[in-house]
This record gives sequence, C-alpha cells and structure tokens, in this order.
Amino acid sequence: MIERARVAVVGVGNNTSALVQGIALHRHTGSLVGIRRPVIDGLGVGDIDFVAAFATSDEKIGRDLTEAIFLAPNNFPKLDCELPRANVPVTRGLVDATGVDRVAAALAGAEVLLYSAPSGRPQTAKAYAEAAHRAGVAFINTTADPIARDPELLGRFEAAGLPLLGDDLASQFGTSVLHDALLRLLAERGLTLVSSYQVNLGGTEDFRNLVENPNSKHQSKLNALSGADKVQLAPLGYLSQLKSQKVAHLNLEAQGWGETAVSLDVKLKVHDPSGAAGVNIDLIRMAASALRNGQGGRVADAMPMLKSPPGTAI
Amino acid sequence: MIERARVAVVGVGNNTSALVQGIALHRHTGSLVGIRRPVIDGLGVGDIDFVAAFATSDEKIGRDLTEAIFLAPNNFPKLDCELPRANVPVTRGLVDATGVDRVAAALAGAEVLLYSAPSGRPQTAKAYAEAAHRAGVAFINTTADPIARDPELLGRFEAAGLPLLGDDLASQFGTSVLHDALLRLLAERGLTLVSSYQVNLGGTEDFRNLVENPNSKHQSKLNALSGADKVQLAPLGYLSQLKSQKVAHLNLEAQGWGETAVSLDVKLKVHDPSGAAGVNIDLIRMAASALRNGQGGRVADAMPMLKSPPGTAI
Amino acid sequence: MIERARVAVVGVGNNTSALVQGIALHRHTGSLVGIRRPVIDGLGVGDIDFVAAFATSDEKIGRDLTEAIFLAPNNFPKLDCELPRANVPVTRGLVDATGVDRVAAALAGAEVLLYSAPSGRPQTAKAYAEAAHRAGVAFINTTADPIARDPELLGRFEAAGLPLLGDDLASQFGTSVLHDALLRLLAERGLTLVSSYQVNLGGTEDFRNLVENPNSKHQSKLNALSGADKVQLAPLGYLSQLKSQKVAHLNLEAQGWGETAVSLDVKLKVHDPSGAAGVNIDLIRMAASALRNGQGGRVADAMPMLKSPPGTAI
Amino acid sequence: MIERARVAVVGVGNNTSALVQGIALHRHTGSLVGIRRPVIDGLGVGDIDFVAAFATSDEKIGRDLTEAIFLAPNNFPKLDCELPRANVPVTRGLVDATGVDRVAAALAGAEVLLYSAPSGRPQTAKAYAEAAHRAGVAFINTTADPIARDPELLGRFEAAGLPLLGDDLASQFGTSVLHDALLRLLAERGLTLVSSYQVNLGGTEDFRNLVENPNSKHQSKLNALSGADKVQLAPLGYLSQLKSQKVAHLNLEAQGWGETAVSLDVKLKVHDPSGAAGVNIDLIRMAASALRNGQGGRVADAMPMLKSPPGTAI
Repeated sequence: MIERARVAVVGVGNNTSALVQGIALHRHTGSLVGIRRPVIDGLGVGDIDFVAAFATSDEKIGRDLTEAIFLAPNNFPKLDCELPRANVPVTRGLVDATGVDRVAAALAGAEVLLYSAPSGRPQTAKAYAEAAHRAGVAFINTTADPIARDPELLGRFEAAGLPLLGDDLASQFGTSVLHDALLRLLAERGLTLVSSYQVNLGGTEDFRNLVENPNSKHQSKLNALSGADKVQLAPLGYLSQLKSQKVAHLNLEAQGWGETAVSLDVKLKVHDPSGAAGVNIDLIRMAASALRNGQGGRVADAMPMLKSPPGTAI
Repeated sequence: MIERARVAVVGVGNNTSALVQGIALHRHTGSLVGIRRPVIDGLGVGDIDFVAAFATSDEKIGRDLTEAIFLAPNNFPKLDCELPRANVPVTRGLVDATGVDRVAAALAGAEVLLYSAPSGRPQTAKAYAEAAHRAGVAFINTTADPIARDPELLGRFEAAGLPLLGDDLASQFGTSVLHDALLRLLAERGLTLVSSYQVNLGGTEDFRNLVENPNSKHQSKLNALSGADKVQLAPLGYLSQLKSQKVAHLNLEAQGWGETAVSLDVKLKVHDPSGAAGVNIDLIRMAASALRNGQGGRVADAMPMLKSPPGTAI
Repeated sequence: MIERARVAVVGVGNNTSALVQGIALHRHTGSLVGIRRPVIDGLGVGDIDFVAAFATSDEKIGRDLTEAIFLAPNNFPKLDCELPRANVPVTRGLVDATGVDRVAAALAGAEVLLYSAPSGRPQTAKAYAEAAHRAGVAFINTTADPIARDPELLGRFEAAGLPLLGDDLASQFGTSVLHDALLRLLAERGLTLVSSYQVNLGGTEDFRNLVENPNSKHQSKLNALSGADKVQLAPLGYLSQLKSQKVAHLNLEAQGWGETAVSLDVKLKVHDPSGAAGVNIDLIRMAASALRNGQGGRVADAMPMLKSPPGTAI
Repeated sequence: MIERARVAVVGVGNNTSALVQGIALHRHTGSLVGIRRPVIDGLGVGDIDFVAAFATSDEKIGRDLTEAIFLAPNNFPKLDCELPRANVPVTRGLVDATGVDRVAAALAGAEVLLYSAPSGRPQTAKAYAEAAHRAGVAFINTTADPIARDPELLGRFEAAGLPLLGDDLASQFGTSVLHDALLRLLAERGLTLVSSYQVNLGGTEDFRNLVENPNSKHQSKLNALSGADKVQLAPLGYLSQLKSQKVAHLNLEAQGWGETAVSLDVKLKVHDPSGAAGVNIDLIRMAASALRNGQGGRVADAMPMLKSPPGTAI
C-alpha cells in the first residue's frame, strides 16, 4: 500500500472546504463521482493527509481544520457525509515576508504545500514558496500571482529537486472551458462567429474579490478563448444569494451556410469551489509523486491544468 | 481554371433551396461566411453547375429550378442576393423502379447525382442509384435509406469507377453535434452525468415527416450520443411557426467534485436546410473529384459527414 | 379552537403524497412558505385530518396512508420532516359503479371526499360522487371527468346541502398560468404577438397518462390562453428522469413600436404534485366550511381554482 | 379631420430615431403592430409633425432630422420603409442655462417640447422647460432629472395652462415591467420567493452612460419591484455587439407547497429605443390634447407611464 501524501494548505476558504470534504466523502463512500483521475502514480483520491493549515482570520486560527472550513465568510455547503476530525489546528499564516522560518519549521513532515489563498498578494505567495523551499517541500500556487513564472524561483526549486506547480488554477469545469469548447465547435463545423458574450455571477468571497479587482482577470479570460475578438465579457456580478455557486450566461451568434443565423444560449450553474478542488486533488498527487521521484521544477502533466504555467506572460 | 462540377439533383425541397441559393450568394459576394471548406481538390464553392433536377410535385415540374425552390411547402427564406435563372427545368421524378432509363438518359453530361428527397422510400432511392450507375455518374444519398450500405450496390459502383457516398447526412451544425460535444466535454473534465434531455422542434416538411415516423430516427439519434443511457429524447415537435428553423432545448445535469451539482441548459436555433446544404456542398465536390480521379465506391473523406456510412447497421 | 376537517381521499398517488406530507410539514414547522391562504373560514392548513383513503393498487391497499404514499410508481420526494402515522389503512377502491354502498359506509365520519385519481374514468368518478351523496359528504373532483358539470348531479348535491366542487384542478403554479400571464402582459403593453410555443416535460405517472391521451388536454390548454391562435403546443414529453418535476420551455416572439422584435424565452421547473396539493388544501377547507354552513352545490370561491367549473362545456 | 400635433424634440439619439421612423412606418403601412393606443383624444399615431429639433453634436447640427437620426453613435436600425424628408434642420441645443430665449423663439408654432436627451444634466433640462414655458408649449421630461417633481416649476406650468409631463419614462416593455409582473404572479399564487436576480446588458450610448453612472438607476430599479429585498441586480453590462438591443437574464427561485422548489429562468431581448418611443408617442398626444383643452400642470393619464411622477422622491 502506498504511503499517503502529506499536505499543508495555505488558506482555509471555500476551496479548501471543498477539498477536505470531498476527500472525506470519497473515503466514506468509495464513489468516483465527479473525479477526473481516480489514481495518479499509485495515489488515490483518499491517499492524502492534511498535516498543517495556515490562515489569517482570528476566528479560524486555533480551530481544527475540519471546523474552520465552515466558518464565515465560507459558504460552500456541508456535504452529506461524516467528517472525522483532522487533528490539524489552523495556524496563524503570513501576511508579509516575515515569519518564513516559522512556517518552514511547521512544514516539517509535509511533502506538498498547497497555496490556496486569495490572488493579489504576490509578496505573501513568494514568502510561502520560500518557506517550502527551505523545508524541502513541493509548492503549488493556485493563484494568479507569479510564482512558477518567476524564473529565478523556478530554477532554485528545480536545482533542489522540489516540484513547483503554478500559476493560476484552471477550473475543472467553468465558464472559460465551456465557452472555449463551444467557440471551437462552431469553428470546426465551419460556422462564422458574429458575436458572443459571457456573463459571470457568483456569491463567494473569492468572487467578490474578483469583482473589486476585475481588470487582470478579464483580459486573461478573453485570452483563453478562441475567436476572442468577437467575444465581449459583461462585468462580473457578485450576488450573495448564489452562495458558493457560479452562474454563467453565454450567448453565441454565428452564421452558417447561406449566411443564415445560428444562435446558442447557455446557462451554466456550478459550485465554484468544487471546480478548484477537483483540480487541486490532481495537482497535489502530481506534486507528491514528482517529489518522491526527485523531479524538481515544472511538472509536465500539470501544465494543462494551469492558466499561466511557466513561460507565459506575467 | 478548373472545370465546374456538373450536378443533377433529386428533390427540390428546402435543402435544395439552401444549396442553390447559397452557391449564388457565394458567387455574388465572394464571402466565405459559414463555409467549412472553401476549396476541395481545386473546386471552390461556386464551381458547381446544376444540369438537371427531378421532383414529383406537379407545381414544381416544368418550372426553372430557381423558381421551383420557392414553392410551397418549401419555407426556407429567400436569401438577400440576386439569383440568376438556372435554365434547368424541373423534370418529373421517379416514384418507383420504373423510368430508370429515362432518368439515366437525362443524366447525360452530369457528373454527380445528389439524392436529396425525403427519407423512407428505399425503392425510389435505389432506382435513382441504378440510373446514376447506368449513366456513369457518382451518387450521393443524403437519406437514411440504405444505399451505400448495400454491399452489392457499393461493389458495382466501385467496379465501375463510380463514387457512392451515403447514407444519411450529418448536419453541419445540429442538435446531435452539439449535444455530443457537451457530453464529451463533461466526461473529459471528469464530471459524472446524472441525466440529460433533448427537445427538438422544427417547422419544415421534412420535420413533419420525422414527427410522423419518429421511431428509427430517435434511436439513431441516441446512438450518436456519448453516455446515451442517461439521455432521454422528448418527442419531436412540429411547429409550423418555426418555418425552416429548428429549435432545440438541451439540459445536462451532472456532478463534479464532492458530488456537487453542475447543470447546463442550452437553446439552439438554426436553419435546418442550411445545415444540410453546408454538408452537401462538400459531398458534391468530393464526389466529383473522386469521379474525375477514377476512384469508385466509398470516399474516405466523406465518412465523418455521414451518419450511416458503409459498414454500419441497416 | 375550530374542529379539524375530516377528509377521505380517493387515489394515493403523488398528489396525495404532496398533500399529506405538506400538511405534516406545516404542523411541524408552523411555516407558511408556499401557502396561498393560511386560514380559510377559520381552518388553518394543519386543521385537516385524513379519515379514509381508497386506492386500487394491491401494494398500497392495507398499508397506512403515510406509508402507501411512498410506493411506486409514486416519485414525489420524501420531505424533510417527521411524518407521524395516520392510522388510516388504505382501502380497496372502486373500479366501476358497484360497491357504492360499501364506500358510503366507509365515509361515515368524513366531511369531504377528495377525488384525486387519474382522469379518464368518468363512471368511477361518478360512483364516488354517488357514495359521497349517500353518506352526506362534500365532494371535490380534481379530474377532467365531468362531475360538477353534470347538472343533474349538481342539483342533487345542492338539494341535499352538500357542496360539489369541480371539475379539473388548475395548478397553483404551472405552465398555463405562467404562459397566460406573459401573453396578457404583452397585450397590455401594446405588443403584438407573432408566435409562441410551449413545451411540457414531466416524469410522473399522471404525466405519462397525459402523454398517452393528449388530445383533450391539449385543446383545453390552448383554450386557457389569451391570443391562442398564435400559440402552438409541442407534444407532451414523458421523461422519467424528471421524476415528480415538470419542466416547461416557453417562447414568445412579439413586435413592439416600429415593428421591432421582442423575444422572451422562459424555462419553468416545478414539482407538479405540489401544484395540485397547494390547491387541494384550499378546496378541502372551502368544501368543509360550506358543508358546515349548509351551503350545497357549487362554491363560488372555488371557481377560479378550477379549469372546468359548472357551466363550462363538457 | 384633427389638426396634427406640432412637436419639437431635444436630443436626436436612438429614441428619437425610433420615434421618427415608427411614425413614418405607421403612416406608410397603416399597421397598428406594436402600438398600445391607436388613438388618443382623436390623435392617431400618424398625427404628429416635427417642427424643430435640438442637438449638441456638430455632426448632427444642420442636417435634416431624418438624416441626423442615423449618425453615430446612434445604432437603432433603419426600419424597412420610406422616410420622407422632415424639412426640419437640427438646431444647436443648450448646454447650460444660457440661450433660453433663443430656444423659446425657435419653439414658435410648436405645441409640445419632448425632452429626450441623456439623463444627468438637470440644469439643461430645466433651461429647456423654462424655454417651453416662455413659448407657451407643453413639456415632456423623459429623463430622471427632476423637472415635473419640482413643485415651483409644476406650479408655474399649471398656472399658465401648460401641461408638464415627467419624470423618467417607463419603457413600453422592459426588464422592470417583466420582472415585476413575474414577482407579482408568484406572490399572487402563494409562492414564497427565495431569491431572484436580474442582469441587464445593452449596446446603446444611453446604456453606456448608465453603466458609468449606475448608482441612482440601480436603486430606482429595485424600488420598482415587489419583494425587492430578495432581488439582487448584477452590474449593468455595456456590450457594443448588442447595438440598440437590450438583453436581460432573470432568475426567480421560489418555494411552493411543501416548500418544494419552483424556478424560473427568463431571457428577454428587446430594442431599447422602441420601448421609449412606444411610450413617447402616447405622452406627446396626451400633452397636445391637454394643451388644447387648457389643462396645465400634471396629466393624470400619463402617470402610469412615468417612473418618477410629481410627488415621488427626488
């Protein structure tokens, strides 16, 4: 039997809640529903143990990880399964570059550090990467802050035999994936796109952050789409009533043979944190496996799961 | 400059209207909007001349092809372009196996016979194929009747160096293509399908025929879909108000990570005859090119554009 | 404190399940969610006791009403509340006009007989009405079979001081109500309807019955709509995956000022049996109250809740 | 035969384009499609003559009204009808309170001044009202700026026997009307609203202005809705691809009997300027009629067509 991967996590928000609960659900039921890769290099979905957790909210610090994930502003639902105590008290996390040694010490015994805090704090992200490097731990950056795209950092992780995965998680199933698939399908069938729009609505704290700092994300969303010059994005809408759900409305207007109209209207409803957790579960296992095999730096299999892998623009 | 392909057509319904008008529109504007393959083996979209047309409706017989395409029950719209007279009077078509010689004689000078009549008259379809064979003309069967799947017939076309393309056209962009793409996308991202339905509404005479004989078509639609055991089809709805448009409502309910719900609702609106003409324009050029190259029997490139190519069940 | 209404019910299908469970839920939580009329003539939603139940399925007969409502083919969900045993064993119901005396005897102590069996068995419906009349009990016919529209029967109920409510329940919230409201709104604002369609999909046994006998229902649905000459109904679609839910897709195409296009697309999702129970709860209380007040025959307040009240065509 | 109403207009944007073209279309075809009130006090839809037009764009000034309405940034479509020259050259309009006398002089012969400029310039709006008052002309304020709600101004118009209609046009058919109708319908049927949202997307210059100054409008939209505490509005989205169309996505989640879920999803597509013109055509006739009858100040029949009539908060 394979040894479980030992994971530390930064950020005890909705995405961590979905990850922790989803693993417990799988262990409880054995079900593979909604799971993209049942086994990666011998590691199953249940073969993950949390060994440390960092957060900055006073309410969460000191609580067991399995309690802290249900505290406000988290609003991912409580899944319908038993959730055994993790015996991992949430520790005070970093807010700047001081305290790296303390975090490094706390990572003793961990194999992977999953950085799952909000985007927009590049110095903090870098400090955690530094701590992981000192502790000899693989690092996963799920935010848009440039970590794996920092050539100097990537070089040092590679030299040390430590995997560095990032940046910016592509959701398991979100608006970009769907919109891009539809745009490609139209193009492949020979239809000519006339116009297309995308409206994104959400109710998580992460979504509220995006709404307040939309610029960078908007452009990166457009870049991800085929035929982007005809696509327009409506401003993101934070609607608390949606809780952890994201709703997207897509429209595509095209022309087929004889220049006749083809139109497509789509509504997508999905739990945003599940989309993140469903990818993190794979990145964690890839990182742990690479670490065990002594492969430092970038991990090829993880590239398609990231929006801004090493080599893309910062 | 390449010699234009000389095409005879059986059936002067909406699909022929879309084909004839779309070619004229392209010649007029040079536009490639909605065109999947601008050139096939040197033949452009405008490099097609109609040389004969067969129909069974008294109103259409004797009229020029470019007038007959606008007669009831046809309801494909008049496109916004000049439509020069074809100088091809519509000729009385076959209703059974008699008259094959007459049709063969009328095919003198043609390279391709496009069989674009309603499905459900296998003897008539076969009689036209026979006439094409006698006249040394390539044959395209766009209906669900088994012609290219008839091994004896296919063998004789192959031996005579005559291409035989069929059976049953897959639309350039229709419900099956879209539904299948979405089902595949969900599966590829690791989501688990819970249930899915498809509602098809249309207003053409072809659609009305389908509504009255839905059985075979329904099953073949389901066969075309991934994850078909979870997909249910609502009965086809003939709504005259839709005219030549087809409307489809799709729903997909799935589960992602943590068994949380993912739902997709889609409305598609498309002109059915354009979907047929957009594929026929390619089949015609493939057939003409194969004939000119002396390649009889099946045409490999055409296979993905057919629902029931040679080798599939009858 | 008011004396509870004593109700006997014919038919232990989804609608009865929704009624029995919804009353228990209200008693448990006191919540008025989804309840149109909290009190009618002093009778609250919880002031109803079931005293007899009739069914024809061998599986249901002999079981307590609160168990029988969960047996196949019923598929209305189990609501999230305690459901105390009713101590009402389901009794074998009528299948024709024999047995009226037996049913009348079993109605001793009841005030109201709610006839909630499938439509299409007018003789059986009439036999139950006969039994109610003999037992001195008010009668509610929720089916499309003509009972309250039978002048002779209505006269006898009136003469005996027994309320007779029917025929054919209008759902608390269904496709007809919604479609009609939208058509009226367009008209009121001066828009001109061009075309409109309605697709109804459902997964209950009642829905399957409708699909197999659609004719009468279709016409009555159209009659219920303003501007019906422009409205077309797609064939009803039985989709087992929907279980007790009904899904409707509506489209309305209109023209406003300058003859410019106005279009509306609507998806409605609703639990069909809840729509019935939400009206039955009011009809029962109106019937009990009228009985107690000695008002026989038709009940004025119930008229808007019925599709075919006395005086409409049979 | 009635004498035609003589109208001057401020603002030569999309709304004026829709008004001018729609009148011409009606005169040409006699059609009453999309027209709410064919005749008001003897005045038909065609009984309106434009006698003056004011704008501030250099491109529009000096052009005939019937040409200026097609200049950028206007993007309301050219309707399919002949548009005879109006022989009304567009005149330079006011940008502040100077020039009132010049405008008043230009209003000689007019009966009604329709103020149809963008919202947000209260001083300019007031200057035009002043000019109308001096010239003895009725005034219609279609903007949200407080004119008819100004008691002093209203008093002077009333004293002078001059009608004053305003403020803020309610569209003939827009998101608020639709959303409110659906919320009322749910309430009337006894359903309990859980949550609801509204997304508005548009492509006109007016819409772009709203996007840049959304605050006031947002709150006033919410005020217009029943059950507003459960309704959330997504930020307005300016999408140039929509041109003069507005698209709205509405969602309503409710609970019916047994607290079971009822959900409604709606897409509305409408030409925004038609919605304005379809109401302006009525306000103009009401104003002209009131003027001819010597009724100054507010006009009772116009109240339901205004979002902020006299007496509502400024």
